[in-house]
Amino acid sequence: MLEDMKKEVLKANLDLVKNGLVLFTWGNVSAREDNYVVIKPSGVEYVGMKAGDMVVVDLNGNIVEGKFRPSSDMSTHLEIYKAHPEIGGIVHTHSTFATAFAQAERGIHAYGTTHADYFYGDIPCARNLGESEMIEYEKNTGVAINEAVKDAVAIPACLVAHHGVFAWGKSAGEAVYHATVLEEIAKMAFITENLTPLTKKLPRHIADKHYNRKHGKNAYYGQNK
Amino acid sequence: MLEDMKKEVLKANLDLVKNGLVLFTWGNVSAREDNYVVIKPSGVEYVGMKAGDMVVVDLNGNIVEGKFRPSSDMSTHLEIYKAHPEIGGIVHTHSTFATAFAQAERGIHAYGTTHADYFYGDIPCARNLGESEMIEYEKNTGVAINEAVKDAVAIPACLVAHHGVFAWGKSAGEAVYHATVLEEIAKMAFITENLTPLTKKLPRHIADKHYNRKHGKNAYYGQNK
Amino acid sequence: MLEDMKKEVLKANLDLVKNGLVLFTWGNVSAREDNYVVIKPSGVEYVGMKAGDMVVVDLNGNIVEGKFRPSSDMSTHLEIYKAHPEIGGIVHTHSTFATAFAQAERGIHAYGTTHADYFYGDIPCARNLGESEMIEYEKNTGVAINEAVKDAVAIPACLVAHHGVFAWGKSAGEAVYHATVLEEIAKMAFITENLTPLTKKLPRHIADKHYNRKHGKNAYYGQNK
Amino acid sequence: MLEDMKKEVLKANLDLVKNGLVLFTWGNVSAREDNYVVIKPSGVEYVGMKAGDMVVVDLNGNIVEGKFRPSSDMSTHLEIYKAHPEIGGIVHTHSTFATAFAQAERGIHAYGTTHADYFYGDIPCARNLGESEMIEYEKNTGVAINEAVKDAVAIPACLVAHHGVFAWGKSAGEAVYHATVLEEIAKMAFITENLTPLTKKLPRHIADKHYNRKHGKNAYYGQNK
Repeated sequence: MLEDMKKEVLKANLDLVKNGLVLFTWGNVSAREDNYVVIKPSGVEYVGMKAGDMVVVDLNGNIVEGKFRPSSDMSTHLEIYKAHPEIGGIVHTHSTFATAFAQAERGIHAYGTTHADYFYGDIPCARNLGESEMIEYEKNTGVAINEAVKDAVAIPACLVAHHGVFAWGKSAGEAVYHATVLEEIAKMAFITENLTPLTKKLPRHIADKHYNRKHGKNAYYGQNK
Repeated sequence: MLEDMKKEVLKANLDLVKNGLVLFTWGNVSAREDNYVVIKPSGVEYVGMKAGDMVVVDLNGNIVEGKFRPSSDMSTHLEIYKAHPEIGGIVHTHSTFATAFAQAERGIHAYGTTHADYFYGDIPCARNLGESEMIEYEKNTGVAINEAVKDAVAIPACLVAHHGVFAWGKSAGEAVYHATVLEEIAKMAFITENLTPLTKKLPRHIADKHYNRKHGKNAYYGQNK
Repeated sequence: MLEDMKKEVLKANLDLVKNGLVLFTWGNVSAREDNYVVIKPSGVEYVGMKAGDMVVVDLNGNIVEGKFRPSSDMSTHLEIYKAHPEIGGIVHTHSTFATAFAQAERGIHAYGTTHADYFYGDIPCARNLGESEMIEYEKNTGVAINEAVKDAVAIPACLVAHHGVFAWGKSAGEAVYHATVLEEIAKMAFITENLTPLTKKLPRHIADKHYNRKHGKNAYYGQNK
Repeated sequence: MLEDMKKEVLKANLDLVKNGLVLFTWGNVSAREDNYVVIKPSGVEYVGMKAGDMVVVDLNGNIVEGKFRPSSDMSTHLEIYKAHPEIGGIVHTHSTFATAFAQAERGIHAYGTTHADYFYGDIPCARNLGESEMIEYEKNTGVAINEAVKDAVAIPACLVAHHGVFAWGKSAGEAVYHATVLEEIAKMAFITENLTPLTKKLPRHIADKHYNRKHGKNAYYGQNK
C-alpha cells in the first residue's frame, strides 16, 4: 500500500543527506495521506535504504505495514498531523545552525527577505518539557510544538528547545525544502547578529510584499499563476 | 535571437550553483545587448534548464521572445541597465555572508587587498524601501541601488538592505565573477571584524596600488596589457 | 595475525578523512583485542595505505608485527586501553571545532539532545602536562585523560588541553563515529554560546530521557532489542 | 630547462585549488634552484594550465624562459629567496581565515600542538607599507616580510598586513603543505579566541616537545629517522 508515497518518503530522507542537514541516521521524514502515515524506520542507515523499508502507521501509531520499527520520533509527527490536517509531510533534523538556535532556547528572527519568502514572521522555539512530560516524551514534544505554532501554513517550521528542528509542508518533498531553507536562514541570522547585535528586523511591509509575491492571492513568482 | 547570449546567461546561472552562491532557484542572471535583455525565467529549477528557456525582454520589460515568465526581479535589472549603459550583465544572489551584511543594513568595508583588487572602496548597502514604494517594488529596488552606487565600474556590486546582493560587470560571466568575489570578501570581513572589532581599513595608498595594478592605465596584472 | 582487525583499523583511518576530521596524516586509529593493539603507522599518507601497513603491538608497546613504526601517539592509546578494558577502539584527531575547545582549555557543555544522545554529561578536557611530564609525554597524556574521565562508557571522549581529541568505543568503527559526533556537537556548542553567552544546559531529566532511550535498559531507538 | 621543477610548480598550484586555499587565479607558487626561479604566469586560469606555461626567471627577475609574463607577485618571492637560501619553494594565497588575521593586522598566536607541530612560535604579520614604498611595491612587500621573519625554518610563513599569506618550505610542495596547515590553524585560532577571548597560549615546554618530536635532532614522528 502507498507505494508511491514510500518512494517519496525515501527520496525525502536521502535529500536530507544530500542537502547537508543530517549526519548518519539523525533525521527522519514522514508523509501523510488521510489516516495513514509513511515514516522512516528507526536507526536504519541511509545507504542501502529502500522504499519497502518505510513503515506505514495509522494516526494512533499502530503499525499497519512494515518489517521495521518506525522512527522513535513518530509520536511527535503524529501529534502535529492530528492538529494540522493541512500538513502532508514532516521532517525532523538536527541541522547545525538551526539546532544551535534551539540549544540557546531561541526562535529565529525575520531579518531578511530570504526568510520572508518562506516564513511569514519569526520561527518559534517550543518550550522545554517538564519532568512529568518525560512519559510520552515524543508525543509531548508534539504538544509543545502545537502550542508554539499559530499558523502552520504561514510558518512551516518550529524549533524545539535544546533539541532540534521540525519542519513541514504539503508533501514530504516540500517539508525537506523548508528544512533546507530554515538551516540557511539560521546561518544567515547567526552571522547577522554577530555583525550587529541589535539588528532591526525586516520592516513588516517588505515582509508582506515578499511573502505575498510568492504565496499571496496575486502571487507572481514562478510559472504557475 | 541572441542565441549566444542565451547560452552565456544559462552558463552564468549554472555557475551561481557551482560557485556555492545560491540554493534552489534563488538567484538570477541577465545580460544586455543594446535594448535587449536576456534573463532567467522565474522559479525554474537549474537542473534541466536550457538556453532556449531564457527570456528576451526589451528595456521596458516587454517580452520579446520566450515561453516562460521572466524572473520576478527583472525590473530591478532593467532599472540598473537603464542608468548604466556600461553594464553588460547583472547577477542577483542571496549568498550567505553578503546577505548577512545586507540584513544588518551594512555595507562591506574595504579591509584588504582582496577587496581592493576588484572594488575601489566600500561596497554600499541600498536603503530600505518605504511603504509607498511597495508598488513597483522591484523597480524601486533598482532605484535605491542606483542612488547608492556612485561609480558602477569602480564598485561593481551593491547590497540591498534586508534583502541580498546585486553584482554586475561587462558581461554575465564577469557579473558572476564579481558576485563570487563579493561573497568571499564578505566572509573575510566578518571574520576580520570578529577578530578585532575596530579594525582599520586598508590604507588608501595600498588600495590605489592594488586596484590600479589590475585596472589602472598602467595595469600589469595578467597577460593582457 | 588479526587480519580482520587490520582491515577495520584501515577503514576507520580512511573514514577520518571521509568524515572531514583530519588533514593530511594528522589522525590515528587503533583497535584492541585482548593484549594486542592494531594501530596506524606514524606519518604515513592515507592515500595508498593498506591493511598490511597497520602495526600490531602489545599493551606494553612492543612491536609484535609490522614493517612500520607505530603512531607516535601509541603510548596514549595504550594507557587508555590499560585503564579501560571495556574499550575496543580509540581515535585521535585534531578536528577543528573540538580542538578549538581544547585550545581554550575547555570541555564541551551538554547543550542539547544531539549531545545527550551519545554523551551522558559534559565532555571533559584533560589538564596541561607539567614540565616534568615531558619525558614519556605520550604516556602521560594518557594518564591525564584517565584522570579526567570518570566513566568511559557514558562519555566516550576526552579533549586534551591545547592539543586535540581522543574518542573511543567498543570498536574502531564506533570510536570514529563518536569522534564525528563530537566534532558536530563542538560546532553546535560554539554557535550556541555565540548566540547566547550564558546559555543554560539541557535540563538533566531530558538528558536522562535521551541518553536512556538509546542506551538505557529499556532503550527503544533503532531496530535491536 | 628545469622541466621537473615546472611540473612540481604546476602541481603545487593545482594543489592550492584542491586544498581550498584559492579562488580563481588568486594564488601563486614558485620553486627555486640555485639562481633560477620557476613561477606561475600572471592571471592565467588553473584549468588547462600546463607545466610548459610556467615562467623561469633569474633572481633579479629577468625572464630566462617562458611565453607568459610571470606572476605580478614575483618580486616578493625573489626578495624572500635572496634573504633565505634555505628556502626552495614559496606560496602566496589569500586563504580565508589567515587573510582575515592579516586584515586585522594580527599574527596568529600559538594556541595548540597543531600549530607547534609546524610553527615554532607565533606566526608574524608584516607591517603595512608606507606611501613611498608603493614604488617597487612587490619588492618592498618582500622586504617587510624579511623584517618580520626571524627564522624562516622554524616559522615557515608570514602574514602581510591587509593583504594575505606567504608560506614557504624546502620545496614548492612543502610550501603548499605549510600554507594548508596555516589556514587550518588560523581557523582554529579564530574559534579559540571566540570561545575564550583571553586564551592562554600553549605552554612553552609543550610547544618545544611537539616541535622537536617532529623536527628536532631526536625526532621520532614518521618513518624517517
